[in-house]
Amino acid sequence: MSLLSLNTATIRKQWKLAQAIEGCTRHDIRGISPWRDQVTALGLRETKKLIDENGLTVTGLCRGGFFTAKDWKDDNRRAIEEAHALGAQCLVLVVGGLPAGSKDLIAARNQVKDGIAAILPEARKAGVPLAIEPLHPMQAAERACINTLEQALDLCDSLGDGVGVAVDVYHVWWDPKLESQIRRAGKKRILAYHICDWLVPTRDLVADRGMMGDGVIDLPRIRSWVEGAGYTGFHEVEIFSELDWWKRDPDEVLETCKQRFLRVT
Amino acid sequence: MSLLSLNTATIRKQWKLAQAIEGCTRHDIRGISPWRDQVTALGLRETKKLIDENGLTVTGLCRGGFFTAKDWKDDNRRAIEEAHALGAQCLVLVVGGLPAGSKDLIAARNQVKDGIAAILPEARKAGVPLAIEPLHPMQAAERACINTLEQALDLCDSLGDGVGVAVDVYHVWWDPKLESQIRRAGKKRILAYHICDWLVPTRDLVADRGMMGDGVIDLPRIRSWVEGAGYTGFHEVEIFSELDWWKRDPDEVLETCKQRFLRVT
Repeated sequence: MSLLSLNTATIRKQWKLAQAIEGCTRHDIRGISPWRDQVTALGLRETKKLIDENGLTVTGLCRGGFFTAKDWKDDNRRAIEEAHALGAQCLVLVVGGLPAGSKDLIAARNQVKDGIAAILPEARKAGVPLAIEPLHPMQAAERACINTLEQALDLCDSLGDGVGVAVDVYHVWWDPKLESQIRRAGKKRILAYHICDWLVPTRDLVADRGMMGDGVIDLPRIRSWVEGAGYTGFHEVEIFSELDWWKRDPDEVLETCKQRFLRVT
Repeated sequence: MSLLSLNTATIRKQWKLAQAIEGCTRHDIRGISPWRDQVTALGLRETKKLIDENGLTVTGLCRGGFFTAKDWKDDNRRAIEEAHALGAQCLVLVVGGLPAGSKDLIAARNQVKDGIAAILPEARKAGVPLAIEPLHPMQAAERACINTLEQALDLCDSLGDGVGVAVDVYHVWWDPKLESQIRRAGKKRILAYHICDWLVPTRDLVADRGMMGDGVIDLPRIRSWVEGAGYTGFHEVEIFSELDWWKRDPDEVLETCKQRFLRVT
């Protein structure tokens, strides 16, 4: 249980950030990964104060990235500052998809590479590791043109220190090279491990993730690979669920996360 | 225009197979790829007769596969016989996803490999090339656990002659290794080339494909890779579109396929 973390997206429709922090403490969840709009709404200083008072570990800040958008540079600088202020274990990068009107994935991927390279010195100086999150290929156009762990790790290799990956089972479970790429990533590059489940059928490309155990992802197997690679950090539950979990009592959601974390992951 | 083929899924809600065959001729489309349920409904002999009378090339028969289902062996034998009878250029294999109740993707992939190996001698004897179609990763659980071109080509390498791939832009456009794997596949392994487009947003995981030009796939670039690899065969339009093209006048659909094939692919 001491390794469970709550990504606040899981209950974002029901709770503001202050409630989520208190909820974690009430349910004895020791890690939290907040989203920046929530941090802004609560205030960076107040967020830091509440998280410290509750003794929570910030397992990640969501999110930087979107390097194919116009204001990417300033936005990522602010994200690094906020991650530093919160003592986040990493800044999660959702790197962005195709720029508006473009069909050029190769160019978008080069933009992403250049963008990360541009902010990396500041991230290193601030002591904030950048976690590239490969997103499911069905998100390639709209959210992230980094779509496999192999691709993300190739990028890490070319960028050097201070950058790694967020391994989210939802995005990578299908990948025939998953085991070998997790091994390749190793302790050094795995900065975060996100869990949820893939529902059959999946009714929406973004907001129909399942609770651990309700889908088809072999969570114990992937966990064994991640831990076998040397990862000893938190397991962060991140569930976007317009049709189910966002409609439920958030205390029930957190209790279910705990039970499932112990029983099925 | 002489390279355009119609996968009958594109107008399957409006037309039966006999109408589709006549429609192709009326619109001067020289290739057709029928689905087996339609062939059964029309009768194999009658299908063959109509296709021959209209001088169409059968660019593929859809589909064999589903090696993780119970009756896979008999069904694939029948599919090979039908493909042979129709003179199809290949039998398209949608290989199947996870067996009911299973979360074991690795086992499913091994079942697929064993299944193809089991039917391959009969396919070779019948002169029917088997086209493994890697499906988009969002279909891994329900339809096909072969999800990248690299994975499909690894399988081809292990199986030898008589097997290749169907490259469908919808399934592979996002893949960072697409260009290199198309080159690797070459003329020998590329048995079919399917076109459509990826819509933004995509509203359904199965039946929301776009007409060429309406989405974000860089069709001329992928075509240049496929032709650069030596492929000289048909370009088969396959659009599943519950919300749009399946609701339209099929003559309009075919006319649009032709125009878009000439203008945007």
